[in-house]
Amino acid sequence: MTEPLAPGSVIGILGGGQLGRMLSVAAARLGYLCHIYDPAQSPPAGHVAAHCVTAAWDDADALARFAAGVDVITFEFENVPARTLDLLSETRPIRPDRRALAVSQDRVQEKEFLRGLGLTTAPFRAVDGLEDLAAATQALGAPAILKTRRLGYDGKGQVRLEQGADLDAIWAEISGAPAILEGFVSFSHEVSVIAARGLTGQVAVYDPGENLHQSGILRETRVPARLSATQRSDAVLLAARILNDLEYVGVMGVELFVTPDGLVVNEIAPRVHNSGHWTQNGCAVDQFEQHIRAVTGLPLGDGGRHADVVMENLIGDDLARLPDLLRERDVAVHLYGKPDARPGRKMGHVNRILR
Amino acid sequence: MTEPLAPGSVIGILGGGQLGRMLSVAAARLGYLCHIYDPAQSPPAGHVAAHCVTAAWDDADALARFAAGVDVITFEFENVPARTLDLLSETRPIRPDRRALAVSQDRVQEKEFLRGLGLTTAPFRAVDGLEDLAAATQALGAPAILKTRRLGYDGKGQVRLEQGADLDAIWAEISGAPAILEGFVSFSHEVSVIAARGLTGQVAVYDPGENLHQSGILRETRVPARLSATQRSDAVLLAARILNDLEYVGVMGVELFVTPDGLVVNEIAPRVHNSGHWTQNGCAVDQFEQHIRAVTGLPLGDGGRHADVVMENLIGDDLARLPDLLRERDVAVHLYGKPDARPGRKMGHVNRILR
Repeated sequence: MTEPLAPGSVIGILGGGQLGRMLSVAAARLGYLCHIYDPAQSPPAGHVAAHCVTAAWDDADALARFAAGVDVITFEFENVPARTLDLLSETRPIRPDRRALAVSQDRVQEKEFLRGLGLTTAPFRAVDGLEDLAAATQALGAPAILKTRRLGYDGKGQVRLEQGADLDAIWAEISGAPAILEGFVSFSHEVSVIAARGLTGQVAVYDPGENLHQSGILRETRVPARLSATQRSDAVLLAARILNDLEYVGVMGVELFVTPDGLVVNEIAPRVHNSGHWTQNGCAVDQFEQHIRAVTGLPLGDGGRHADVVMENLIGDDLARLPDLLRERDVAVHLYGKPDARPGRKMGHVNRILR
Repeated sequence: MTEPLAPGSVIGILGGGQLGRMLSVAAARLGYLCHIYDPAQSPPAGHVAAHCVTAAWDDADALARFAAGVDVITFEFENVPARTLDLLSETRPIRPDRRALAVSQDRVQEKEFLRGLGLTTAPFRAVDGLEDLAAATQALGAPAILKTRRLGYDGKGQVRLEQGADLDAIWAEISGAPAILEGFVSFSHEVSVIAARGLTGQVAVYDPGENLHQSGILRETRVPARLSATQRSDAVLLAARILNDLEYVGVMGVELFVTPDGLVVNEIAPRVHNSGHWTQNGCAVDQFEQHIRAVTGLPLGDGGRHADVVMENLIGDDLARLPDLLRERDVAVHLYGKPDARPGRKMGHVNRILR
């Protein structure tokens, strides 16, 4: 049994975007201090953290100083370079650990891992060249989606492949990077499960939320999701199976397709997740605090929910709607403090509390 | 009409205690940056603010630099020295303004102001010497409470005066500071109203909370309070009258005694208030965000409440109960990041959401 970190301890967070920002606030609420590490100047999390380091992911000196100044390290995004983790893990524990990251950094490994647990995923083939692509297209049929194995998010690094598509052109579009072709899954809607596992093995799962995407970006999550009682318990149990198998510590987002034949795992994210932002206004313990509790060894909240909530992302110039949103009843506004509202950029979100 | 401060603007907060800390987090949620000014090193608000200045209240250079770096100034406590405000107000607007502070910094002025509005207060006499004290005791009878006119909080600077008390000893106990003797009010319970007024005159009031004190310190606030419909609307209306008369901008806490003859105003605090902490888990817009909305010129939230809540302060070694509190269902923990749990010191609070 590890003792929980005492209040006043320091949590190091890799990445200073909006997820790091909301993790910092949650950590402060539990009496912890946060140090942020990010290559960018004045990242969103830096506004609400005790300390913020601006340095590159391969700056060994800066990483060593950062590690020496914190008690535990976590991250807000899954694409932390392996070499960065190697350097940091010599000095301090990193939670969640390398295995969870390795599995989720590579779409082929991820699907193989999930299938190994007996879970259903989309049919897939690894694609390392144009010949693989032709064979995979033959095997899986169309439509299908070609994705880079690594570093994709918010619909980036993805191409939809229709019947009779020009494979050369498509292969060029993803720059010939190692890829995966995923076969078509006919689903009615997508839900996601935000689950947490603590240092002592305790698992807690929030009520699944239903996701609506637009142009590959999450637009909205609503709880409760449209799920039968059986689907709901399936969703919760399969999330727990994933976390337990990985001996995971922290919060994970698990995206699921709802199909007539059951739930299909779309992908997992080894971190707090956009589709869990509703917990800020629907639960006593939100996903950010839950993650901090997990990585510091505190007991988890039970995931209980006291309100129905619809979370809506504010993307790009959605910010122009702010004056109206601030006037709307039972709407909680969460902005990320980003200076420029570029198209497709997540600028904030609102949680509508239904009553 | 003043335009609201744009996201990215900087709010200066005088005082870096727990109220400043929770104001900082709320301001960040609206996309603002906070600069804290506090004479103490590493105050609680400094952990979650973009910038924190450590300097004395009479350090004119530090005050000038601070004012130059912010767009608007507010405060977390009513005892900011007048000279500090003089220096700052040359450069930047201070909200709420001097009149609200002047009225609430002096218990005699405060009561005279409230009576001037036609509101009921405890009977009182100004006491500037031993002779005044004897006369006031004669006039008001016993029991009564002798309080310093200025700088009292959490039961400090107060002495209860019983029938036949030794007036010399009591006068010595408050060190002969200018004082007020307050006559006895027979009340069943105390409630407080957290009210806000925006830059454009909009007023919004939260549902009154019922307060329980122990040893002069707030122990617990519960919403809804035990109030009849008439009392509830009286409470809301009298709070609005106070804010409107002062042309107040920001959140104010108004403490009321509930008596068979109606509501008696105990005191007002020109700032966010401990008895409003429940709003963090009962409302989409909590009192801290409401204050930030007011002082930045944003529209106010309507004060709507979606849950019943009991707020309990964690005082001194209450912190030892933390492991149990973290396990309790529907309990939101808010710690202040203070290093040492001295007796009587507010270390945090919990909000229990009732469902």
